[in-house]
Amino acid sequence: MQSSFLNIPNGHPFPLYNLPYGVFEHKGKTSIGVAIDDYVLNLTLLEEKGLLKVEALAGKKVFNQITLNAFLATGKPCWNAVRQFLMNLLDSNTSDLRDNAALQAELLIPQSEIVMKMPVHVGGYTDFYSSIEHATNIGKLFRDPVNPLLPNWRHIPVGYDGRASAIVVSGTKIKRPKGQLKIGDDAPICAPTRQFDTEIELGFIIGTGNDLGTPVSINAAADHVFGVVMLLDWSARDIQRWEYVPLGPFLGKNFGTTISPWVVTMEALQPFCVAGPEQNPKPLLYLEKQNINFDIDLHLQIKTSKMDAYQEISHTNYKYMYWDIAQQVAHHTVNGCNLQPGDILGTGTISGPTPDSYGSLIELTWNGANAIHLNSGEERVYLADNDSMQLVAMATKGDLCIGFGSAEATVLPAIDS
Amino acid sequence: MQSSFLNIPNGHPFPLYNLPYGVFEHKGKTSIGVAIDDYVLNLTLLEEKGLLKVEALAGKKVFNQITLNAFLATGKPCWNAVRQFLMNLLDSNTSDLRDNAALQAELLIPQSEIVMKMPVHVGGYTDFYSSIEHATNIGKLFRDPVNPLLPNWRHIPVGYDGRASAIVVSGTKIKRPKGQLKIGDDAPICAPTRQFDTEIELGFIIGTGNDLGTPVSINAAADHVFGVVMLLDWSARDIQRWEYVPLGPFLGKNFGTTISPWVVTMEALQPFCVAGPEQNPKPLLYLEKQNINFDIDLHLQIKTSKMDAYQEISHTNYKYMYWDIAQQVAHHTVNGCNLQPGDILGTGTISGPTPDSYGSLIELTWNGANAIHLNSGEERVYLADNDSMQLVAMATKGDLCIGFGSAEATVLPAIDS
Repeated sequence: MQSSFLNIPNGHPFPLYNLPYGVFEHKGKTSIGVAIDDYVLNLTLLEEKGLLKVEALAGKKVFNQITLNAFLATGKPCWNAVRQFLMNLLDSNTSDLRDNAALQAELLIPQSEIVMKMPVHVGGYTDFYSSIEHATNIGKLFRDPVNPLLPNWRHIPVGYDGRASAIVVSGTKIKRPKGQLKIGDDAPICAPTRQFDTEIELGFIIGTGNDLGTPVSINAAADHVFGVVMLLDWSARDIQRWEYVPLGPFLGKNFGTTISPWVVTMEALQPFCVAGPEQNPKPLLYLEKQNINFDIDLHLQIKTSKMDAYQEISHTNYKYMYWDIAQQVAHHTVNGCNLQPGDILGTGTISGPTPDSYGSLIELTWNGANAIHLNSGEERVYLADNDSMQLVAMATKGDLCIGFGSAEATVLPAIDS
Repeated sequence: MQSSFLNIPNGHPFPLYNLPYGVFEHKGKTSIGVAIDDYVLNLTLLEEKGLLKVEALAGKKVFNQITLNAFLATGKPCWNAVRQFLMNLLDSNTSDLRDNAALQAELLIPQSEIVMKMPVHVGGYTDFYSSIEHATNIGKLFRDPVNPLLPNWRHIPVGYDGRASAIVVSGTKIKRPKGQLKIGDDAPICAPTRQFDTEIELGFIIGTGNDLGTPVSINAAADHVFGVVMLLDWSARDIQRWEYVPLGPFLGKNFGTTISPWVVTMEALQPFCVAGPEQNPKPLLYLEKQNINFDIDLHLQIKTSKMDAYQEISHTNYKYMYWDIAQQVAHHTVNGCNLQPGDILGTGTISGPTPDSYGSLIELTWNGANAIHLNSGEERVYLADNDSMQLVAMATKGDLCIGFGSAEATVLPAIDS
């Protein structure tokens, strides 16, 4: 394995092998970069200086942008060429940057000096429901403990169109939403949600899209995907419960969705590829299993206003997901629906098989029956004002470890209106 | 009432009072214009020549664009100022353009010479379900003939997030979608839809948005809306039926949505404002009725490959809608969801009280029980390949008549894949 002249310690989330892409602000200027060690390598400046020597990008200004979308649209061979170029540039055996302290000072900016922005312009956001453990838990809680899965669930990666405009980058505070609630037999009221939840998800970022009317085949599907972010799907369960029949979740979901700022590339994830659960019945041919799940650990943490540090409340793994990203892309486009660069496909809540690996408060507390006890002596069933939630992910295999950074947000009180 | 020097005949869809906005291509160049008589007035050129003398636009280039979004973002006072300026410029008593044949030849382009494009970039698309007649029909057909409306229906304008990328301008052909179908007790299959339907809708176009976390109050809601287009919501009923539980419509809907190219402004619609149906129970305060329905006639027409002319199969009116656009905007944002310029809020299927005013084939044929007999001797339950559908709308009051143009599309056969 290659190593960088930056002498990155083992276990650092951003080794040479990772190189996740992000958009950052530094001294008032927005640029694109990759994370390496505790730095960001400024690709906008690298391109501007003519030092980004990648043939496929000749004459293009894909990093003189405020989002990754233009780079995404260049396609997989180009993404891979840039990755190879950057790995080589940062390699301990390459002298160009290694031996040029002045250039390093320009191009490598300490992450402590930057503010991360939305990595992509999200034109379309789709949220799936692809964890069999999550769908089973929700079915047991609200429908039928004996037959918790709906008849379509094992045949199609169930999903719905979400609200792209409400996707925000990690650190953006989320106001407690108001909405219409129906409590027991009382008439409906308009009030702040009393059941503020969040869901552990990953968000796959579409790199290259497809034309309306032209499906992406299951074999080609993975090549359309550029990378992955963490995603916190904030949910107001009481609003959702009253509104969702028959057209699905709407205001219970679209008041805010948090993503992590660093996009980990599919290329960097390859060593962590696993087969994923067996699918029974065998999916139809257009959804034929490609075995591209990934072994990615996810940790959900909470910090109330009385706590000094985050406390873990769930530890799950993406590898449990029943439907994988290739199946989701093939299904999404089988009717001709057009995906576009920067679109996000949410995995749906990632729940594992054991109660400590459930991916949402509604499952972790079993619909409120079991409050979560915090180190501060507090209890939580749902989120209180000023609670902060953080999602942290890491993929590990032998000595190789790549991190996703963090997706976090704090719950603000509802405004009066 | 003002009249134009163009001597527009009574009953013409585009009189001086209408002035709908659109984006068109002429001789390879994309420009913005308003329809007047059989012409389009080129606003891009008007602005370029410095002849668009509107104080609020001073120094701005809102029409040197390929969509209306920049103009929408200027806000209602500016929209109204531009409307007043254009009405005056085209008035029979104003000489500037009237007496300048050379300028007329430059600025007024025959509509026969242009190709219409998407009027806006649609960042977000939401589809409501606001016709009580439609919701009742669907409830009777599929749920409970005695209690067809779901418990939430009279309390909230039920809606869902749709897929913005699949919205296309009138004239774009729509491929018959493939998808997963479940017929009776058979195992699911992947096949072209056998139940290709369309729905009569209007699409309200958001002019000015709101910040995430900041609701739009019911009193301010209408001022955020710029105008209206016609909308054909193509639907694959068999795909929809199998996929939609529990997260709502997805691939049954997002393979194409047709809108008309001319955006009729809310200002032009004011004379046609009506109170709309009484709402019982009275909505919660945040949805307090503003009585801003509109009397707009809508005609749905079909033309098969064996027919020479369109034949009407439904005639309905927007005034029947139970929930109005102000209520939809207030509801959409009550949780803090952010609307943006160019977003489209679909009304949902517009069905009237009588069977000849139902807004979809599934209602018109009562789920296939009553085939539609065409002048060609053919019958239709759902759409066949190469069928064309057209939606035409017109608002009339005394001598005043404003048209919406047409929204039409032809069904292409499904591709093999």
